Formats: sequence, structure tokens, C-alpha cells
Amino acid sequence: MKNFYIAKSRRLRGTKYTSRVENQGVTSYTVYNHMLLPASFGSIEDLYFHLKEHVQVWDAAVQRQLEISGKDSSKLVQLMTCRDLSNAKEGRCYYCPIIDNKGGIINDPVILKLSDEKWWISLSDSDVGLYAKGLAIGHNFEVEISEPDVDIFSVQGPKSFKLMEKVLGPKINELKFFGFGYFEFGGAEHLIARSGWSKQGGFEVYMEHTKAGLALYDKLFEVGGEFNVKPGCPNLVERIESSLLSWGNDIDIHDNPYECGFDKYVNLDTEIDFIGKEALKKIKAEGITKKLMGVKINANKISVTGSMNLIDENNNIIGDLRSGSYNPMFKQVIGIAMVKKPYFEASQSFKIDINGNSFDGTVCDLPFI
Amino acid sequence: MKNFYIAKSRRLRGTKYTSRVENQGVTSYTVYNHMLLPASFGSIEDLYFHLKEHVQVWDAAVQRQLEISGKDSSKLVQLMTCRDLSNAKEGRCYYCPIIDNKGGIINDPVILKLSDEKWWISLSDSDVGLYAKGLAIGHNFEVEISEPDVDIFSVQGPKSFKLMEKVLGPKINELKFFGFGYFEFGGAEHLIARSGWSKQGGFEVYMEHTKAGLALYDKLFEVGGEFNVKPGCPNLVERIESSLLSWGNDIDIHDNPYECGFDKYVNLDTEIDFIGKEALKKIKAEGITKKLMGVKINANKISVTGSMNLIDENNNIIGDLRSGSYNPMFKQVIGIAMVKKPYFEASQSFKIDINGNSFDGTVCDLPFI
Repeated sequence: MKNFYIAKSRRLRGTKYTSRVENQGVTSYTVYNHMLLPASFGSIEDLYFHLKEHVQVWDAAVQRQLEISGKDSSKLVQLMTCRDLSNAKEGRCYYCPIIDNKGGIINDPVILKLSDEKWWISLSDSDVGLYAKGLAIGHNFEVEISEPDVDIFSVQGPKSFKLMEKVLGPKINELKFFGFGYFEFGGAEHLIARSGWSKQGGFEVYMEHTKAGLALYDKLFEVGGEFNVKPGCPNLVERIESSLLSWGNDIDIHDNPYECGFDKYVNLDTEIDFIGKEALKKIKAEGITKKLMGVKINANKISVTGSMNLIDENNNIIGDLRSGSYNPMFKQVIGIAMVKKPYFEASQSFKIDINGNSFDGTVCDLPFI
Repeated sequence: MKNFYIAKSRRLRGTKYTSRVENQGVTSYTVYNHMLLPASFGSIEDLYFHLKEHVQVWDAAVQRQLEISGKDSSKLVQLMTCRDLSNAKEGRCYYCPIIDNKGGIINDPVILKLSDEKWWISLSDSDVGLYAKGLAIGHNFEVEISEPDVDIFSVQGPKSFKLMEKVLGPKINELKFFGFGYFEFGGAEHLIARSGWSKQGGFEVYMEHTKAGLALYDKLFEVGGEFNVKPGCPNLVERIESSLLSWGNDIDIHDNPYECGFDKYVNLDTEIDFIGKEALKKIKAEGITKKLMGVKINANKISVTGSMNLIDENNNIIGDLRSGSYNPMFKQVIGIAMVKKPYFEASQSFKIDINGNSFDGTVCDLPFI
């Protein structure tokens, strides 16, 4: 694999942490919501082992907040997701697929209810704000739609609990998974959620007060030596092993929630009104024709930069690999693939071409562990 | 300036030309509409001189087509832009700001009318398809919204006319600026427009037939030796010199068409119904408070990776620089800045900090030449 540089410009905005992560040794970026997201600090495999044992602080500012407020805000937020939010509670995060009229997934954010008339949609990589604007204009809703100045940093890893307690006190560890609260540091109150894009435990700080927030970011490094704190970023190896799906990689607008294993986030039987409800009823009745599955490949290296075909012994394309990486624990490549009917039985075998060589693999259920 | 690698993944899709441009020596990418856009093949200054004298072929597939078809397609397209399209002709391209309800610019595409019920919106870097979907759902319009399999390559430079004529015959040069037609090559008809993102003249091939289209791409290199054809990409130096604005860099959703010099694309006095009409009337009546201007800076190097403040002698921020590059013809840095009232008089002087050093500059009118 040849490497290429990224050409920076204002259109690919840096974050409030960019100067810090560049001093801390970031080596590559990806682009997410029109911003720079660190993708490695040297070896992602080294960082994978570190993340599973210690604690990392990540620049996760690309996870932009779409703020929807006003009289019709609950109606608009509900209209966009197939998950029933009628009983949503303040102080809780909800993983919610955003759906179009054909049942396709536009985004898979976490939604935070701040109050009855104020919501944050913590976005994956698509301009859902434009969808919300179009809907609000078309329906003549009374809402304000904005992207507030909120820049998340994430504290992930098994030692994140002790590190955060050392700085913020024991109350931080009273947060339940996907709960959030406000915690004081540097003279400001910070919205902190027990969440994050790894399965190693941790927190996301929704930084609204830049000066105090950056002081908190710096403090974690200052006092975190005993927990072996390091800068990090969403880790390709860990997130695949943990079966955390990535919109744009594993999922796109041509996939529906049933194909992605999101059945429990689709509430067809309640009274709520949302876009795509009829389409999803039809899909549910007819059954799905493709499904996200795990794959294991007998290879020690892969770089997935687009869909890669999985081929059975009769040369049928049985599906396409959407992300993958060598996993040091499985000692092979594992990945996430969209597998066609009738091939989505676990243990279906296939061949895949990697840089001109053919490798054997098998389909498996998700999650991997 | 430190350089960083780009981390590729399916989420940042390659194009149908990616394997070709990588063989042809691309050195950096930017990301545009969730896809890879070549940003350099070695020195952008060398390519600037080449582009102004010879001919280049660019992978411009990131300029995605948003196809809107069906009974209400004209209504929906018109609703999104402040430019009056009621007299739009088939076979013509129209530069059209896409506007939100506050008059902010969401995108600045070229719109192609394919027929009364079929339009292509040739997008800059934002998900306008989601805006269109929201509006169509909210208004209950009878339209189909899709992203067809169209991958543009662009042929730019003064010798593009002779090169294209050599391959496609003299009819290609009967196209008027911003006109388009269909031309045969390799057994398929290709939509080709006389357009492109340089001021050096040229064409854009809207490739729908992959095999024949890639054969045409390859043919241009095969027979283009006498015109000194080279692979290229949108050139930062040339596009600033030519005052071609870049959405996301020079313009964003917080800017309105009057601030960007798009007065002639705002049709307030016709009967047409479009989003933001009332907001734009108010802005026009009250007058603008900031304006895109040129700047010239006595420096021989700059890398604009975010807004950079322009400061007057009394330490007032008079505006922000949004893009810029050293220009070999002006023998200084030139750039595009959003300048605040009352400072947007040409010849206003300022200071700017570049990597810790202060440089002098002056504001000037656009275009530069």
C-alpha cells in the first residue's frame, strides 16, 4: 500500500485539539463531518494493546452536535428516527438510526435529550442538519436548527474510570452507561457522558467551555502518568473486534436497520410518526435479502479502501467486505461484511482477493466476542 | 508545515479513476463529498504553469450528481436556489447557489437541465441530497432523488480544445461556454459540457458508461503527447488567481449570496418561490456587513488550514482569510478573505500572522485579473 498525504484547507477544518494532537504525534488523519479526525499515532496495533489495558484521550470533535430546539423539536427529532423517543429521559443518550423514506440509514447518531424542547444529535459522518432543515421547512415546524460550539474529547480504556475520578471526584463513576451529567472543572460545568466509541469503557466530554475544557484535557495528561495515559483515536482494530459499526464504512443509505442488526431500535408497533415507517413495515414483512455479518480471513494483512467482493466456490459473489483489519488476538484478519441471502449462514466459506492474491475466509455471527 | 497521511477507508470512497491517478503519481488527496479528490501530483506550482500553457486531465468524480426527476422536480429544484430557473433550457449549465431559510449558502453547484422532469445538480462538498429529501418529504412532492453512477473527469487548459477535437472531432468545439451535448466514443454517448473549475478553458465529461468512458480517459493520454497532456487536479494557485470560489473554503452556510458577490444569481423580483427569499429581501434592504474580497500579502509562503485573522493598525480584526497561496505571477501571496464592514474598501491595509511572523497585506477587489 502506497501512502498519500492529506491536503489540508479550511474546508477540512481542524478541531480545538488539532494543535495538541499534532504536538502529541498524530501521524494520519481521516475526514469526518468536514473535519480532521486523527486516525493513528504511529502503530494502530500498539495503540490497540494500550487501549485494552490503560487509558487514552481522543480528539472526537468531529462527532458534531446537531442542536434542535423549540416547540416542535421533539416532533422533528422523532420524525427522523425509527426508535421510539416518546419516553426519552433528560440526562440519557439514545442510539438512534436516522432513516429516509425508503428505510435507508442516513446516519447512526447518539441522541441526547437535554430538555423537552432541546435535543443534541451527536452525528456520524453525514450532513443530517440539511435533512432536518428540509423537513422543518417542508413541515413548517417551529424549531431552531444549529451546530453549537461543542467539541467532544473522549477518555477511553479500563483505567479511564480511575483517571477521571482522580480529576473530577468519585461522582463521575456514579454515571450509568449512556447516562450523562454536569461536572465542574476550571470554573465551568461540563456535560460528560459515560459513553464512547470503544468497548473498553470510558467517557465523552462534550466541551462547550473551551478554556476550561482544554485545561481539563491537559490535566488528564498531567496527572495520568500513573495510569499510563496516552493520546489515541478511534482504533480500527479494537472497534472491529468489538463489532462497533461505522456509518459510511459498514453501513450506508442503501442499507436498512434490519440488515444492520438494529431490530431493537425499530419501533413499528407504537403510535409514533416517523419517516420510513411504511417502508420498514414492508421490509420486515418481506424479510431481508442481505445482512451485516462478521468474517474471518486467513490473512495477516488487509487495507479495506472500498467494498471488496467475497466469492464462493462456484464464483458467486456472496457479499462485500466493508471494513477489516488484522487482529492480533484472533491472529488473522477479521472484518464486517454485507452478506447476501442465502449466504448469511454463519460458517459459509468464501475467497477474497487481497492485492492480487486469493485468501480463504468464513462468515461468522456478530459480535465476534 | 508537517505533513500527515490520509487514512483511507470505504467511508472515503475512491473513484473510478483512483487506480489510474495513483499510477500517474498523485501525491496528496483532499476529501470531497465523502470521496478522494487528488490535490497534487508533486509541485502544485509546476502544475500551475503547465495548466496555463498545455492541457490536463483531472479526476473530478467527487463532483457528484444529485439527480432529481419526476413531476415535481422543477418545483423542488427551484425551491432550493435563489436563481430563477423558470426559463432554463435543456442542454445548458447554470451556476446556482443553494440557499437555506436564513439566506445562507448550503452549496454552490452547477445545475444541468436534462429535460423538463430531470435535473442534475453537480455538487460542491455538502450533502444537498439530504436537504432535497427533507424538502420532498415535508412538501409531499412527487420526485425521485438519487445519486446516479456519474463520474466526471475534466479536461482543462488552453490545449484542451485541440486535444478533444483530435479524439472526438470538430463538433466538440461548437459547444458554447456552459453548454453541453452528447458525443460518441467507444460505442457510447457521453454527456460533455464546456465547463470546468479553472479559467484556462476546457470540458467536463460526465462519465456514465464506465468502460467507454475510461477508454476515453486513457485515449486522451495516449494521443495527447503533442499537446503535452498531464494528469492534474483542481489547482489551488490557479483557482485563487482566477477567483474561482470554493464552498467550504471561501464560502459557508453562515454567508449569503450578496456577501459572496453573487448578486446576479439572486432573482428577488420574479414570481418564483424559493427558500430564503424573504431573508434575502431583508438582507438586500439592510445591506451586507461583510464581503468576500481579494487580499495580497507580502509573503512568499502560506498554508491556510482554517480562518486566519486580518488585523488593522489599531488591532481590530477586519476580516478572515479563507484561502491563499503564493502566486508566482504576483510574486506574493494572494488569497480570498471575508472582510467586515467598514473595512471592505479596496486598498485597506492589514497585518496577518503566518507561523508566528507578522506580514503586511492589502485588500483588493475580486477578480484579481
